[in-house]
Amino acid sequence: MNFSSKILENAVQEVALLPGIGKRTALRLVLHLLDQPSERTTNLASALVDLKMKIKFCKECHNISDQPICEICADAKRDQSLICIVEDVRDVMAIENTQQFSGVYHVLGGKINPMEGIGPSDLTIDSLIHKVNSSEITELIFALSSTMEGDTTNYYIFKQIEKSSIKVSTIARGIAVGDELEYADQISLGRSILQRVPFENSLKN
Amino acid sequence: MNFSSKILENAVQEVALLPGIGKRTALRLVLHLLDQPSERTTNLASALVDLKMKIKFCKECHNISDQPICEICADAKRDQSLICIVEDVRDVMAIENTQQFSGVYHVLGGKINPMEGIGPSDLTIDSLIHKVNSSEITELIFALSSTMEGDTTNYYIFKQIEKSSIKVSTIARGIAVGDELEYADQISLGRSILQRVPFENSLKN
Repeated sequence: MNFSSKILENAVQEVALLPGIGKRTALRLVLHLLDQPSERTTNLASALVDLKMKIKFCKECHNISDQPICEICADAKRDQSLICIVEDVRDVMAIENTQQFSGVYHVLGGKINPMEGIGPSDLTIDSLIHKVNSSEITELIFALSSTMEGDTTNYYIFKQIEKSSIKVSTIARGIAVGDELEYADQISLGRSILQRVPFENSLKN
Repeated sequence: MNFSSKILENAVQEVALLPGIGKRTALRLVLHLLDQPSERTTNLASALVDLKMKIKFCKECHNISDQPICEICADAKRDQSLICIVEDVRDVMAIENTQQFSGVYHVLGGKINPMEGIGPSDLTIDSLIHKVNSSEITELIFALSSTMEGDTTNYYIFKQIEKSSIKVSTIARGIAVGDELEYADQISLGRSILQRVPFENSLKN
């Protein structure tokens, strides 16, 4: 691309560094901002800088938070002895949206992935083990995605806490509510048969 | 979406105001920035603010520029008497990429569009008419997109300069180089027959 202005070119290049945004899209976004009142751009820029500078991670669960302890961990109504282990803040938001979980979270910040050089020490696993050993935890729920990396991470954590008497569970896998059996993938359908639940339990929700 | 942090929510909302970017994409982009070194965010923010604060529009052609007069208008090798009328900076970049045009541009900043409330006075048409009346222009080339709005804008400008002796042309419409006739749209194919060119001319390029 032949830019008529270095300032324009610089802005396009910076925007195009974002994942999934190519140069053409970046140019479209930048020209859109140029068309808008200055406040739009300054608001956007300061929101991004604020994000990077002011955001905190909860000391308990490592979730993104404005306070040293996040709202969920600080909530006296939540069951602090029930911990759901998730990958990132999006998973917390997804589970919170269901309004079915009354415990607290532990955000790992990723999954063990040797191919990308992410080992246990890059995640918040140590802090989880410390929590398990030092406070009254009754149950850990694994809610990582069921990929090779997710399963590896689950297993690694499970091995670390095996000797404690804590109950460890994973979220149920099966056929999504409303899905047709004939279109379900084999693995999910197979698991849903092996891990069938008493019919009375399925009536609870 | 239930955000665990107001700062995060604010950043996502600002990013989601950009055209074509929804809340989920905005959250993905924002979490990506959070993962990156701080410079990435500050570079992006300052590039956007610089863009809005420092960018100029060329006094001659109204193209985006770092200087009061853009590089193309300031270039002594370009034919200042041949003006190509385009909608915005992207069209200038596209035509410059062809390396087939040695004149200068006039950037309208849009097309006349009564449905969106864009009239002639919102564009740089007055400045174009002034240029036509006050300097030595030999030819105007319309290179707006061939939509109703583009045709309206062409016709409006044409009416304003009809009495001057300037040659007015539009870029050729027809079948794109390399396209199969059978898949071409009727209007383009019809025009390409009506506006056929001497075969010798087609050998020039």
